[in-house]
Order: sequence, then structure tokens, then C-alpha cells
Amino acid sequence: MEASVIGRRLPKPDAIAKATGQAEFIDDFVLPGQLYGKILRSPYAHARIVNIDTTEALKLPGVKAVLTAKDIPGNRMGFGMDNEGLKKDKVRYIGDDVAAVAAVDEDTAIRALDLIKVDYEILPGVFDPFTAMEKGAPLVHEEKGTNISCSYKFVAGDAIAALAKADVVVTNRYELPFVTSCCMGTHGCLASFNADGNLTVRSTIQAPFIYKHELAEALEIPESKIRVIQPIISGAFGTRLDVYSYELACVTLAKKTGRPVKIVFTREEEFINSRNRQPMIIDLSTGADRTGRLVARVARVIADNGAYNSWGATTPVVGMTTVSSLYQVPNVLYEADIVYTNQPYSGAMRGYGNPQSTFAVESQMDELAEKLGMDPLEFRLLNSNRPGEINPHKMKITSCGLPECLSGAAEGIGWKEKRGAQNNRGVGIAALQHVGGGARVYRSDGCGAVVKLDSVGRVVVLIGSTDMGQGSDGIVVQIVAETLGIKPEKVQLINNDTDLTSWDAGCHASRTTFVSGNAALLAAEIVRKKVIEVAAEMLNLPIQRLVFRDEKIFDQENTDKSVSLSKVVRSMHFRQDGQMVIGEGFYDPPTEMCDREFMGNVSAAYAFGAHAVEVEVDLETGKVKVLDYVAAHDLGRAINPLAVEGQIDGGVVMGLGYALTEEMIIREGKVLNPNFLDYRLLTICDSIRAKKILVETNDPLGPYGAKGVGEPCTIPVAAAVANAIYNAIGVRMRSLPITPEKILAALKEKNK
Amino acid sequence: MEASVIGRRLPKPDAIAKATGQAEFIDDFVLPGQLYGKILRSPYAHARIVNIDTTEALKLPGVKAVLTAKDIPGNRMGFGMDNEGLKKDKVRYIGDDVAAVAAVDEDTAIRALDLIKVDYEILPGVFDPFTAMEKGAPLVHEEKGTNISCSYKFVAGDAIAALAKADVVVTNRYELPFVTSCCMGTHGCLASFNADGNLTVRSTIQAPFIYKHELAEALEIPESKIRVIQPIISGAFGTRLDVYSYELACVTLAKKTGRPVKIVFTREEEFINSRNRQPMIIDLSTGADRTGRLVARVARVIADNGAYNSWGATTPVVGMTTVSSLYQVPNVLYEADIVYTNQPYSGAMRGYGNPQSTFAVESQMDELAEKLGMDPLEFRLLNSNRPGEINPHKMKITSCGLPECLSGAAEGIGWKEKRGAQNNRGVGIAALQHVGGGARVYRSDGCGAVVKLDSVGRVVVLIGSTDMGQGSDGIVVQIVAETLGIKPEKVQLINNDTDLTSWDAGCHASRTTFVSGNAALLAAEIVRKKVIEVAAEMLNLPIQRLVFRDEKIFDQENTDKSVSLSKVVRSMHFRQDGQMVIGEGFYDPPTEMCDREFMGNVSAAYAFGAHAVEVEVDLETGKVKVLDYVAAHDLGRAINPLAVEGQIDGGVVMGLGYALTEEMIIREGKVLNPNFLDYRLLTICDSIRAKKILVETNDPLGPYGAKGVGEPCTIPVAAAVANAIYNAIGVRMRSLPITPEKILAALKEKNK
Repeated sequence: MEASVIGRRLPKPDAIAKATGQAEFIDDFVLPGQLYGKILRSPYAHARIVNIDTTEALKLPGVKAVLTAKDIPGNRMGFGMDNEGLKKDKVRYIGDDVAAVAAVDEDTAIRALDLIKVDYEILPGVFDPFTAMEKGAPLVHEEKGTNISCSYKFVAGDAIAALAKADVVVTNRYELPFVTSCCMGTHGCLASFNADGNLTVRSTIQAPFIYKHELAEALEIPESKIRVIQPIISGAFGTRLDVYSYELACVTLAKKTGRPVKIVFTREEEFINSRNRQPMIIDLSTGADRTGRLVARVARVIADNGAYNSWGATTPVVGMTTVSSLYQVPNVLYEADIVYTNQPYSGAMRGYGNPQSTFAVESQMDELAEKLGMDPLEFRLLNSNRPGEINPHKMKITSCGLPECLSGAAEGIGWKEKRGAQNNRGVGIAALQHVGGGARVYRSDGCGAVVKLDSVGRVVVLIGSTDMGQGSDGIVVQIVAETLGIKPEKVQLINNDTDLTSWDAGCHASRTTFVSGNAALLAAEIVRKKVIEVAAEMLNLPIQRLVFRDEKIFDQENTDKSVSLSKVVRSMHFRQDGQMVIGEGFYDPPTEMCDREFMGNVSAAYAFGAHAVEVEVDLETGKVKVLDYVAAHDLGRAINPLAVEGQIDGGVVMGLGYALTEEMIIREGKVLNPNFLDYRLLTICDSIRAKKILVETNDPLGPYGAKGVGEPCTIPVAAAVANAIYNAIGVRMRSLPITPEKILAALKEKNK
Repeated sequence: MEASVIGRRLPKPDAIAKATGQAEFIDDFVLPGQLYGKILRSPYAHARIVNIDTTEALKLPGVKAVLTAKDIPGNRMGFGMDNEGLKKDKVRYIGDDVAAVAAVDEDTAIRALDLIKVDYEILPGVFDPFTAMEKGAPLVHEEKGTNISCSYKFVAGDAIAALAKADVVVTNRYELPFVTSCCMGTHGCLASFNADGNLTVRSTIQAPFIYKHELAEALEIPESKIRVIQPIISGAFGTRLDVYSYELACVTLAKKTGRPVKIVFTREEEFINSRNRQPMIIDLSTGADRTGRLVARVARVIADNGAYNSWGATTPVVGMTTVSSLYQVPNVLYEADIVYTNQPYSGAMRGYGNPQSTFAVESQMDELAEKLGMDPLEFRLLNSNRPGEINPHKMKITSCGLPECLSGAAEGIGWKEKRGAQNNRGVGIAALQHVGGGARVYRSDGCGAVVKLDSVGRVVVLIGSTDMGQGSDGIVVQIVAETLGIKPEKVQLINNDTDLTSWDAGCHASRTTFVSGNAALLAAEIVRKKVIEVAAEMLNLPIQRLVFRDEKIFDQENTDKSVSLSKVVRSMHFRQDGQMVIGEGFYDPPTEMCDREFMGNVSAAYAFGAHAVEVEVDLETGKVKVLDYVAAHDLGRAINPLAVEGQIDGGVVMGLGYALTEEMIIREGKVLNPNFLDYRLLTICDSIRAKKILVETNDPLGPYGAKGVGEPCTIPVAAAVANAIYNAIGVRMRSLPITPEKILAALKEKNK
């Protein structure tokens, strides 16, 4: 029987609440007695803190507390514990957290910041990773003895030897800028202690359970005393995976004042102090044999880590998989150094190192194809990943629709007709692979769900996973509704609160549809099993003949014979020795943590896709105009095509910004454009509605066949655009963003 | 091994929150855009509504809506559907709901009420049940053709014949006043519609799931679209079991304005418009044989129902069980008529008809003992209920500590020494029986619970039962903590929200400890079972040897060998194919609905108790002084003796108010004393700290042996006091409250 809910184009469950202003964001919460906090930030990129005098600030009427580092218990945080809430001895970037104030209103808090006197001893800084790696460079963290925070190496086969023997080799440098995710709302945290000494934190986060754990460690509070609530958030994209320095101050201010304290970032703070996509320099070589078969890739990556470690320091773990495994490559060498500088520091952002890598890899695929004299599409199809393949990381590719995506995108853009077109128009293509079935980066990659059915048809799902705006809540609702044969609007989803729900590893790695979808499915199936047994008795029919649909259980061989779901549940509940119809499921995908050699099947499914774009370049202004766009994605199964299309449109415009306009401009550690006037984010006026091709490979482990698609949508965009520009005007752009200035300079160079 | 948490004297989990003002009562909730509602109430006891003109009220700036009956969908409610939200054609008591206003603030709403013009045609009213039953009396509900709302009859054996043959018979009339529960906070309701059209109601209720059902029926809203949240409430005592008329108006105002609307009762409304203990006239005869064995009781009860049916109309169901079954009585005839009048109408209040009945039955036991020439204590012990007995309703008495309670209370008060004491001092005793193991008045008397354990030791209990101030939440916490060997402060209890938790039949009938305690126990035992299996493997020991205590599972034969609970949970969760430790339980006691003859074992356990009191009566003023008080209760097992003692102290002072001072004085339908100056509620200054005797009979079905004790504490107080007064000064007081005026009048009569 056909699905009645899966595959339907449904609006997000919270769409109306958001459109009408009913949705409650962090700004909407005001607790009784609430104070407002502000952070005093360093004006210097690198300086020793000699003295902080808070006397005058404390005297200001309305100021309830002023904190410095010594007031925060624990005060250690970050990957490698290289960071603090407030800085004790040294500041390491312009905007570093120095002191914190809580006052009765925001204006008073801001005035108090001005009254805090800090004596700094200014130190020389380092502002690019190459200088930072030089001998004698100022050390961002002296105690480490080096500015290299960490290094990665992945080896498969002998790539150096294979390259030496390859018939054709291309070697280039690709440069990726520091961009930021520009969430619609800024970061905010509201901390309050209950009468029993337990802490409740409402924060704009995307992984409540892990956040709780990290907050507990950073502040030396027992984790059992913390409840974390995620208000509705306006985007996250990875930037909200971390505990932030300001949050340690916020919680401590609440503790010290005995009142709730809220700190919300200004937009300027959001630009400078939130974690975003890290800049990288990628030196990449790819070799192929005469027939066009790839033989090796060698990548050397330098990432500007900024002042502290956040998730940015770990993104090579994903970035390397594209170098090693997008297309079949037998020999790989990948090396990356993550280098401290006195710059703002980066984290995770949609794709987690993959957009950078894919730009390099997929630009170079075109360059290599040209050298081989092959059509870039044919070259890709020849080397394409296939179902059943095991890649160099021992990842098991199960469902894989990459060839279909490539062919579909090419056909959609009119590859054959347009490839040799005139008038500075051209078409380009680029592909991606990414995790699509969870990503085991913690010992548990699981999610828990409870499904509760009552006799009046209200179905409640309590689930650990949270939605950061992408619409995953709706996916969970559809899965439960399909399984129980009810209308999606009857399903109430409750999540976002660590007390109410079971663990989830967080909203990242495009894992929610796959992992929490499976958790909800497990729980709903338990409910279904309980109900079907009673229904079978009531209908005097074997279980095998029963189906759930339209809030009924009926005989599929005689659809006149049915019993309403509500009646079955009533009969189970409203009697002596009754029972409630509850199902509980915990889904942890059958995957492995990767080992020290980065080997391991970290995901239960992998996502693939290909984007094709047609551009026109204005030779006088250097401006690139996107004429047409096709995005083909292997997402296993589209639970909600409308939601998928929304993800794709959002991902494409985000990718186009990365390709063409976005960059945090930083000079001597100072961000020059921390606002929407000077940082050129694409808007709805710049967006193009992509043609979408949904390749449904029906993943064997995905819930109703689905796998993740959230990050993939943005990953290949920049490479596709660069390839199309080359096709249009014959200049190869290897540095993002591809601004008109860069195009004009490249044209000038070419025409020399 | 001894219990480590059960039996401990622990403060209520919410004690500090309440003491510090952090607890959120209905007044503390303010939703964005919230409006304030007010009800226009009838100034007449009985009148036809000829016309309502709301024009002027609607013109007042700040008024957002004015409702009359026609605006409320459905608008039918109450037992027998004899009531409306706002009244369409007729008002039936002074205070009846006529119109409703929502405005931007309370003052504006009050001003708007003055601007509503209502034309009434005043009708003659009936103000006592005897007049109301006379032929030709004005009819409160014309369509019924009579003022008798309903009648009850219970027959066991042949009581009339048995009385005729009895050696000794006593016959008297007992009069019980209209008293009110005087909750610390007044009623309040906050209704809001979400963007998706779903309704959320926060209301000061004590049975959220049943409330949701009744609200849906009254307003013709699908129940699946309603979420009910119970804020922390400041007492309920039965008065908050109903949906109230004003709540239909509140929800409709929210619907009409599209904004949240809150209505909170004034104290005057709380007195007049809330449901309280119904006044009764009980004509009772009891007969015994020469040896002192009871042979029969005959009761004829008339209850003033007031203008509409609420739970008050059904309290004879409980009241009759005391007449039939407190002590062993082979022949019983019980008849009750519930009579409509144009008075405020009554509902349920701590004991549900039992305080009235027990006053009559236990007063008459003393009168009969005197006539038999027996000591009242010996007379009671001779006829006492015993374990294993099946009473005339086919209720199965399992655990029964009544003899121990009687002996204990008597000994505690110094029965032998003081019984013949001088100086207008005397001692009295009275006993009670009540349900103590649930009460099946709905088809489900169950409660659902989910217990969730995480690796950091935070245990969350999601449970359907709610706490109305009595401390049941703490009992649930102790049961879970004991079962899992953890500290009670590690347990977070979440309830009060119909979306989050499973069904519970509500906080009434002293059922919460027994029923929700058992539900929590079931869920915790499932968790325990899951954990112990893994722990046994880790410790390489058989399950039978393991005990849970101090957050460890250890070998009871070698306490050095243990593993921490947290470690076991981590090992279960943080691995591939992990699981969360969740247990789900639904407990529905093994009981029966009573049939049309009021036969059936409605409770899984019965509570017993006896109170003894010493009083001194001032012969000049008539004032009664309580010198000493002993309360002995068979509660199965005291999960938290401190909480039990608090219940007893509260119950005793409430009972003393009923006995000595409390009465709603109503003349021609008008309540003359609807405030704390004129209604003489006992305060902390009047209270006496009773000596408590906890008789632990270890009920076979109770959680850790416990059964209910909430209502019982207040049931026998008035009879014990009346009996002590008789012992002191030789006058028999059969009308409550026993005011100084009544005592002086009785003394005058006696001395004639």
C-alpha cells in the first residue's frame, strides 16, 4: 500500500507560529527578576592583562555584579581546554572576553562596561598561519611552544609514488576565505538557578545534551544539576555546537546575583565572536592515467585556526574524506596543520570542512579533465563512486546515486548544448559526498524517542533531537504519522529540553532525519505493535491483514471492515488493568568511531549529489550572473519534498555567497566588515530558484529509505560556479570569493 | 536490607521554591499580549434574563471582547449537563455567570462590567431543600419538573426489620453546614490559542486529563487540540475537580480576541462561586443488640445541592459507605435526595461526603454506647472492622488497623484517666474509614509514569499525577529513589502537563500515593531490571545478590564489590547499538466500578483511623478549648513521616474549623460572609499540634506497603470533638459548627 504521509509536501509544523510571531526565541523569554549581561571585550589582538579595576563599574546604580576570570569556577573550556570563559592573563584576539557585567537593563550594563579599567601590555601578534609557523613568531599560547594547534595525516596506498607514475597530474593552490553563517538571530543565553540550586540554561544551541556535558565540565557544576532548554532558534549551521565563553560568564552572573541573567549577542558580536567556517589554503595535486582513471591525490592543508580551538580545528576529519573518496582514488595523502593566529576563531559551518575541500577537489577535476582532453562530466562518471564500494577510510558506501545525480544535473542544465556556448556564457558541474546516516564522533551517535498515544487521537512524540530551523521536526512528525496512519497535524512534537527527552547527539552532520527519524520510527512501531494486537482481536483478523490509515486500522482485503484507532486505544486504556499506549525507542546507527588513522565506517549511509550551473560573466565589470541552476541530490527518499526543496534553495544561495561575495575582511586581527552593509550576504533578491532533482535510492537503513541532505546542498556550489566561469571566459578562479575585482585581474593576466 | 529513602523525613521537593517565591502560580504567568477577563455575575438568586445590552461596554477603550451565552460554542456542562458557561435564559443563584469581558487590564475589565445592561425578570426563589421539595415550589430547573436532582438508595439486609427487633436503638438528626475549603490562592485560568489553532489552558485544577475531556465536551473543541497545564496550585481539596463556568468564557474570549486571556477569582468569588462541601441533614438511626453488637443503621439524607449539579450531587456514594460499613453492620438502609435550591452550589471537599456521614455515625456511636451502658471505646472495638472482612458494598478490606488506631488514640489521650475527669473537661473519640487504594469512579483509575535515567545520575520521572500542595510529588520521588538506590534530590519530577505525561485519573480520593506511587514503582522497576542485568555481567555476579544503594549496585554479600550506577548506564548508552535506560509503567488498581446497587470493590485498599481529643468548655462563654489531640492512622506505610504529619496537622485544624467555627452564612441565597474577616477560618494561632500515631499495616498492594491518608485526617475530627464536649459538659451537639452560642443554648435547654 502506498504511503499516505511520507512523500507529502507539508509546511513545517512551526511555520505559522514563526510567520505570526508566536514562536518564542531567546529574546522572548523574560524571567521574573531577570538581569541583562554584557561582555567587556579586548580591543587588542594580543596583550597581557596587567590589571582589571571594576570598582567604578560596581558603583553604578543598577549594576548587580561584575565578573573577571577569578570569579568563574573552572573557567576552562574548548577542544584541548585552551580557552577560558573570561581571560585571566592574556587576550588573544580583538573581541576576546575580558569581564562581564549584569545590570537591571541593557543600557546600564553597557555603561558599566565603560567604567571597567583594564591595563593591558600590548604584545606583537600573528595574523596569518604562514607567519605563525615561522620560527620566532609570537606564540598565541606560550605554554604550547608552537602555534600549530594540531595536525592531521591520512594515508592510503602510496600517493607520492602513484603521482610520480601518473600520466597526467595537476597541482594547484586553492584559497578559502573566512565566512560566517549569518544566522537570522544572534546568540543568546539565559541562565537561572532554581530554589533547589539546580541550573536551567536556555541557549541558542544545536546539541543540548553535549552542551550540558561541556558546560558542566567548564564550570565544575555536576551535570545532574543542569537542565538545558533550547528555545526556537533562527539557524545554527554548526556555529552553535559549542559552549561559548560568554555563557560561562552568564551562568556565573546568575549564580552570583541569585537572579536570572540573559546575554544576547549584538550583530557585531555575532560576526566577530561566533564560530564560523575556517579559512584554508589547500595545495592539491591529482593524478590520472591516460584512460582518465584517477590514480592519486595529495593534499596539504593549512587552516587559520584563530586564537582558540573550536570545532574548526577538527574539520579536516571531514575535509579529508572528500580528498580521499569523492570519486574512486586508490592512493591518497592528506596532511593538514591547524595554526593558531591572533584572529577570531572558527568552528563548524554547514559541511564541516567539506565545502573547502570540495571546492579544491572539484575545481581540480575540471582542470585535470581539460589536461586529459576529456569532457568533465564523462571524466566524473568514469570515476564515480558506486553502491557497494568501500572507500579508503573503510566507509561502506551502500546506497549511492552519484552517477544519476551527475547525469541528471548535466541534463537539467543542458550540458551538451551549452558546454561550448558563446557570449561569455558557460556551464559547470561539481559533485559532493557527505555523511548521510549519522556521524559517530561521540561514543553514542544515538537518539531517544518516546511516542505516546491517547484515546482522543493526540499523539505526542518526546524526542532528543532538536530542530534549528531546517524542518527536521516535521520529518519526525511525518514518520510517526505514516507509521500510525494518522494526520500529521495530530502529532505534537516535544523536544528541546534535556529533562523531558532522551539523549541525542545533537543537530549536526546532517544526521537528524536519519538518526532521529529512525528513533521515532522504532518508538512508533512499538506503539503500532501494541495497538495492532488488540485491533486484530477486535476485528477477528490476522495481524498480517491489517493496515493503519486515516486514523483507522482496517482489513486490506476488505476495506469496509475497520476499527478506529481511537476506539482501540480506549479499549486498551479505559478498563481495569488498563494500559497506556506508549512506545520507547533508542536508535544508534550501526557505525564505528574512526580510529587514529581515520579509518572506520562513521556513518550508516552516505549522501551524494551534483550541482550544475550556467553563468554569464560581464567582461567589463567582472560581474558573474547565475542564469540557471540544477541541484540533484541522492537523499535516499524525500520524506517531505517541499522541505528538501527549501533546504536546497537555502543551500544553493549560501553556496553562491561563498562562491561570489562573502568574506570576513580582517586586517591585523580586526574584522573590518562585521555588519550586513559591508559583509555581502546574498539576499532573497540575489537568490535563484534551482531546479531540483531528487534521486531516491531508498537507503536500506534510512527511515522509510531516507538519508541526510542538510549540509550537502551547499557543498558543491562554489566549484560548480568556478567551473562554469572557466567554461564561460577561460579563466580559472582558485580563490573564493570570486569577486569582480578578481575576475578582472585574472582576465588582465590571461590577456597579457 | 533496610530501606534507605522510604520512611525518611524529607521536606517537599518544592518547599524552598514556595518559601522563596520562585514557585510559579497562575498569577505569575503573563503571556505576550495577554488580556484580563472578568465575569458579570447575577445580583439575583432567581431571575429570567430578558435582555443583555453590551454596546456601551464594547465602546470602552481597552475592551477587546464582551461575551454572552450565545457566543460560547456548546456552552453545556456539569453532571447531567444542567449548567452553562454563561447563562442564556435564567440565572439561578446570586453570583451566576451572565456575561464576560476581556480587556487590556483588570481595571478596564471591571469598568466594562458596569457598562453591561442586563434586564432581569425576578422570580421567586427556594432557599432550603425542604421548601424546595414541597409541591408548587418554584422550580430551579423547570424542564426537570422537580427540584430533586437525584436520589440514592443503598440496601443491605433488612434494616427496618432489624431495627424493630434491636434491643437498643438511637435516632437523631445531624445538621452539617456549608463550608468552603479556603484554598490559599483563588481559582484562575489562562487560555491561549497557538498559531496552529491548538488550545493551551493553564488552570488551577487537580485532574488535568479529566478536565481536558470535560472542557472539550463543554466547548465542542476536539480533545486532541487541547493541552492542559496545571501551574503550581495552592490547595484544592476537591474544589478544583470541575470545569467551571468562567473557564468556558475564558477560552472563548481567547478564541475571539486571538490573544491569551486570564481570569482569576477574587476572594469573594472564591467563596461564592467555587465548589465546596455541601450542607446535609442526616436523619440516622442505629440499633444494637444487648451485647453491644450493631444490628442495623438507617439513614435518610437531604442535601442542599444549590443551583447546579457539581460533584456535590454525587457525594452520597462515599457518604453511604460510612453509614453502611464503618464498624460491622449487617443491615443497612441509606437514602439520599439531592435537592436544587437557588443557593451557591457545592462540589467535592476533602472526604467527599464522608466528614458529614462520619459526624453523624460517630456521634451516634457514643449515644448508643451510653444507652447500652458501654464505654464508647470498648463499644467501638467490639464492632470494629477487621482485615479480611467484606463489607455490605462487597468492598474487600485487606489491611485494616482500625483496632490499633482506636486503642492507640485512646491510650494517647489518656482515655482511662480522663474519661471521667472534672472541671468541664472531657475526652472523645471517633474513627473513620475511607478509600485508600484508589477509587474507580472512571473506567480508568490508572496513572502512567516514565522513568528516565542518564549517565550523570539525573533521573527524570514524567508522571500523570499532579500535586495540589499535599506533597505527593515527594512521595513519588522517594519511591523512585528507593527503587534505584539514589538520592531523592537527584530525581526531577515532571508532571502537570497533559502533553508531557500519560493519563492519570486526577488528584482526588486520596489515591495519589497508592496509584501514582505504584505507577512510578512499576516504571522504576523496569529501569532497575535493565540496569541490574548489565551490572550483573560487569560484576560477574548473579542478579539475586545485587542491591541498589548510594548510587551503586553492589554485592550484598561483599559490600566492597560494587559498580556505580552511572558507570553501568554509561556502558549501556555510550557504545554502538547503545540504549537509553527508560522504564514505562501504567498502574491501574485491581478494582471494580460500583454497580447501580453501589456494590463493587472500588478501591484496592482502605484507610482507617481514629482521633481522640480532650476539650475544656467554658460554661460562661460556651467556648470550647482543645487541650490535647491524638490522631492515629492506618496508612499502610509512612513513605515520608514528615509529610504524613503535615497532612495530619492540616487535616485536624481543617476538621476543628468544621467542628467549631466555619460556616457560610446564606440568607435568601446571599452569602453574608464571603471574606476572611467574617468567615471564621482557623489560623495557625488556633491550631494544635496533634500527637500522631502511624499504624503501619503494610498493605499488600500499596507501593512499599503505603495507602492513602490525605482525606482521612480531617474526617473524624468533628465527631471526636462533639463526643468530648458531651463527656465534658453532658450536652450533645448535633449541629455543626458547635459555636459558643449553640453550646450556651444547649446548656440552657439541659438546665431547664
